[in-house]
Amino acid sequence: MDDGHHLSSADFRAQGHALVDWIAAYLDGIEAHPVVSRVAPGDIRRQLPPHPPEHGEDFAEHFPQVLADIDRVVVPGLTHWQHPSFFAYFPSNTSGPSILGELLSAGLGVQGMLWATSPACTEVETHMLDWLIDLLGLPEVFRSTGPGGGVLQDSASSATLCALLAARERAVDAIADLTRCTVYASEHAHSSVARAVRIAGLDPSNLRLIPADAAYAMRADAFADTLAADVRAGLVPTMVTATVGTTSSTAIDPVRAIATAAASTGCWVHVDAALAGTAAVCPEYRWIHDGLELADSYCFNPHKWMFTNFDCDAFYVADRRSLLQALSATPEYLRNPATASGEVIDYRDWQIPLGRRFRALKLWFVMRHYGAHGLRHHIRAHLDLAQHFAQLVRAHPDFELAAPVPLNLVCFRHRGGEDVNAEIVERCNASGELYLTHTRLDGRYVIRCSIGQTQTRRRHVDAAWRQIEQVAAAVGGQSGRRG
Amino acid sequence: MDDGHHLSSADFRAQGHALVDWIAAYLDGIEAHPVVSRVAPGDIRRQLPPHPPEHGEDFAEHFPQVLADIDRVVVPGLTHWQHPSFFAYFPSNTSGPSILGELLSAGLGVQGMLWATSPACTEVETHMLDWLIDLLGLPEVFRSTGPGGGVLQDSASSATLCALLAARERAVDAIADLTRCTVYASEHAHSSVARAVRIAGLDPSNLRLIPADAAYAMRADAFADTLAADVRAGLVPTMVTATVGTTSSTAIDPVRAIATAAASTGCWVHVDAALAGTAAVCPEYRWIHDGLELADSYCFNPHKWMFTNFDCDAFYVADRRSLLQALSATPEYLRNPATASGEVIDYRDWQIPLGRRFRALKLWFVMRHYGAHGLRHHIRAHLDLAQHFAQLVRAHPDFELAAPVPLNLVCFRHRGGEDVNAEIVERCNASGELYLTHTRLDGRYVIRCSIGQTQTRRRHVDAAWRQIEQVAAAVGGQSGRRG
Repeated sequence: MDDGHHLSSADFRAQGHALVDWIAAYLDGIEAHPVVSRVAPGDIRRQLPPHPPEHGEDFAEHFPQVLADIDRVVVPGLTHWQHPSFFAYFPSNTSGPSILGELLSAGLGVQGMLWATSPACTEVETHMLDWLIDLLGLPEVFRSTGPGGGVLQDSASSATLCALLAARERAVDAIADLTRCTVYASEHAHSSVARAVRIAGLDPSNLRLIPADAAYAMRADAFADTLAADVRAGLVPTMVTATVGTTSSTAIDPVRAIATAAASTGCWVHVDAALAGTAAVCPEYRWIHDGLELADSYCFNPHKWMFTNFDCDAFYVADRRSLLQALSATPEYLRNPATASGEVIDYRDWQIPLGRRFRALKLWFVMRHYGAHGLRHHIRAHLDLAQHFAQLVRAHPDFELAAPVPLNLVCFRHRGGEDVNAEIVERCNASGELYLTHTRLDGRYVIRCSIGQTQTRRRHVDAAWRQIEQVAAAVGGQSGRRG
Repeated sequence: MDDGHHLSSADFRAQGHALVDWIAAYLDGIEAHPVVSRVAPGDIRRQLPPHPPEHGEDFAEHFPQVLADIDRVVVPGLTHWQHPSFFAYFPSNTSGPSILGELLSAGLGVQGMLWATSPACTEVETHMLDWLIDLLGLPEVFRSTGPGGGVLQDSASSATLCALLAARERAVDAIADLTRCTVYASEHAHSSVARAVRIAGLDPSNLRLIPADAAYAMRADAFADTLAADVRAGLVPTMVTATVGTTSSTAIDPVRAIATAAASTGCWVHVDAALAGTAAVCPEYRWIHDGLELADSYCFNPHKWMFTNFDCDAFYVADRRSLLQALSATPEYLRNPATASGEVIDYRDWQIPLGRRFRALKLWFVMRHYGAHGLRHHIRAHLDLAQHFAQLVRAHPDFELAAPVPLNLVCFRHRGGEDVNAEIVERCNASGELYLTHTRLDGRYVIRCSIGQTQTRRRHVDAAWRQIEQVAAAVGGQSGRRG
C-alpha cells in the first residue's frame, strides 16, 4: 500500500481505544513489574532499529505491533513512577482524570503563547490558578484580579529561575551591577537555586547557603546576619528562597521570619513549596505557609503530589511587573489587538519558552473529579501512612529516624553506619519490590521513604518495611552490627 | 456517595474511549468552527464556577457533563490551530500517531530526569534524536555516539538559551567578563535571541543585530565586519545565531559563510531552524543546512511542521561538554550508580528544568507511522501549496509578493498600502474562514500566509485566496485604490 496516510478518524478511534485499554491494563498490572528497571545502559537502544523506517508502518494496521513493542522494549526499561511501592525522590503521581486532561490537550493541539492564540487556554489557566488559591488557602495577594497572578510552569526549577529573573530586574538597573547581586537559600535548598544563579549570570560565589537548625530548616537569624553583612559590604541582596519542604527531609523554612528579615532590604522573597504545597489542601496543614503573604513569589507542583501529570508547576507572583519587565518582548509578528488593548494576559511573558500547551485542562479535571474533599482525603491518607512508617522505624531497635516527619517523607537510618545503609538501599532497589533513594543530613547517609503515589496503601508501606527489615537483617549479619 | 474515589480501571477505559471519540469528532468537524475565537476577554472565565468544588463530580458518572462543558465553554474560546485554514504564525501541526504518543507518555507517568529514573525514557529519546539525523541528513557531528548529541527541549526559545549558556561557559571563565560577551544574530532573528541574552545576564547592548540582504537573510560580510570590530575592541564574541527560516519570511541565513567568519574567534555558532528544519526530510531541500557541519549547535521543532504535538524541539550540540558544564549539578539526592558510572546520559544536565516527561514516544510514533517516505509526501504537498498560493498572488494585479518563497510561507501585500493590508487581515480573521498574521519587512506591513497544518489541502488554500480577494475588493472600494 501507499504509506504515509494520515490516520483516519475511524482508525484513530480504534487505536485510541486500544491504547486507553493498554494504559488501564498497565496501571492495573503495575505491581507485577520490578519498581526499578533492571536494564543495563544500551539495552533499550539495542532493541530499536538503527535507522528510521523509509516506509511507515501504518498505525491503522500495525498498532498492535507497536503496543507489543512497548511491552517488549519500553516497559522493561521503565522505572515505574506510578508503582505503589515507588518511595524514591518525591512522588510524581497521576490519576485517570489527569491523563484524560493531558489527552484532551494533545487532541486540541492549541498553542497558548498569547491570549489571542486561544483565549480559553489562557483563561482556564488563570482561573485554575485562582482556584488553587482557594484550594490551598494561599494569600489573596497572588490572585489574578490584583497586581499579581499565577501561571503554570513546567517545573519548580523554571519557577525559581523566573523568580530570580524578576528579582534581578527589580534589584539592579545596570548590567555592571549584576556582580553585586547576592542570593540566599538554606544549605538544604534544592540545587535549582544554584543553577538559576548560574543561568542568570550572577556570581556563584554570591550565593549564600544559610545554615540550618536542628530540624534542617533555615536559621532566620543566620540569614538576617548574612544579609546585614552583605548590605554593609555594598552588595545588593536580590533574592532569598525559603523552602517549604526541602528535598532532603521536607524541612520547613520559617517564611515569616525570613520575609521579615528581608523586608527592609528590598530582597525578593521566593517560597519554593514544590512538594509540600499540596499538603495545604488540608486546613490543618496550612501552617506550612505561615508568612506567605509577605512573599514576592511562590510555587508548588501539582505534578508531584496532587494527582496531576508532570509537567505542572503553579507559580505565583505578588506583583507581575518585574516578571513581565524581565521576560516580555513583542516582535511585530506577535502583535495583535488583544495584546495591544492591555486587557488580557499573554503568558509567553511569564515563562522561559515562547510556546505553551493547554496544561490547565488536567488541573481542571483533577479538581473537578476529586473536589477539595476528595483531595484532602487522599493527601491525609499519605500523611497518615508516613506517620505509620515513622512509627515502624521508631519501634525497631536497629533503626532510627534521621529527621522530623512533618509531612509525607520519612528520613531514617540503620544504626549500623553508612555502608550498611547504602547496602540496604541497593539491595531493596535490586529486589524489585520497592524503590528508595537517599540523602545526607549532617554529613551522614540517610534513607528517604517518600509516600505519595496514587495507589500506595498501607499494605505497600508495610511490605516495604518488611523488605527493609529483611534486607537489613541480611546486611547486618554480613557486615557485623555496629549499632 | 462518598466523593473523591480514584477512577476505576473500567471507568478510565469507558471515559477514555469517550474522550478519544470526542477528539476524533472535534477534528472531523473542525471546519465548522471559526478559525479564530470570537470571545472577548473574560468571556471564558465568566462561565466557570468562581471557586473549586468542595465535592467532586466523579468522572465515572459525570464525564458526559465534562465533555458538554468542553463543547460549551472551551471550544468557543479556542483559536483552532489544527483547522486546515489556520495560516497564522507558523504551524503547530499534529497527527493521530502523535496524539497517541502523548497519551502513552501521560499514561506511563514516568519522569526521566536521570537515566536511572527510567532508562527507556532517555534511551528512546537519544535514539529518536539519532534517527532525526538520518531523516534530515544532518551532520554526523551531532550524533550521540560522538562527543555531541541531541536532546528534546520544550521549544526553540529554550534551545537558544541552552546554546547561549553553553557558549557563555566556553567563552569566559570569570563572571566579571560577562559584560564583554557579544552576541550576533540577523535583524530578522527570533525575539528569543534577545530574550536569551537578557536571561543569561549579558548586556543587551552587546547584542548585534546584523543587517540582512535583499532576501532578508543575514549578510555574512556585515557579520564578519562587526565581529572583527568587536575583537579589536577587546570584546568576547560569544555566540552567533544563524536562522534557517526566519519567522518573518523564512529567509535562510548563509550558515557556511557565517560559521567560516566566526571560526577564528571561537564564537559559538547556533543554527535555529525551528520551522524550516523539517523541510530537510526532502533531500532536495537539504541545501538549507549547507555548512551545518561547522555549527556548534542546532535545533528544529518537530512540533511545528512534523506532525508532532507541541512541545517537541530537537536540540543538538557538536560537543556536549560546555552544555554540561553550564547546567550540571548533582546534589546528594540525585546521586546514583548509573550516573556515577559515566556510561549514561542524564538529560537533566541538558536543559533548564530538572524533570522531564517521555516526549520521545510521540516522535517515535510519528516516524514509525509515516516513515521517511510518508513525511516527505506531506511536506512536499505543503511546499507545493505555498508555490501555488504565491502564484495566485503574482497573478493578481492588486497584490505582490513581499519576499522570496523558499519554503512554506508566503509573504505578500496588497498594493493599497499599510491600512488596506491591516484591514484585510482584520476582516479575514473576523470572517472565521481563515487566520492570517502579519510582519514587517523593510518597515512595511506584510501579510504572512503560512501553510503547514496537517489537513490543509488545495481547496483550503484556494478558499483562503478567494476570501482575501473578496475582502480586498471590499476594503479597496472603501479606502480608495492607492496602488
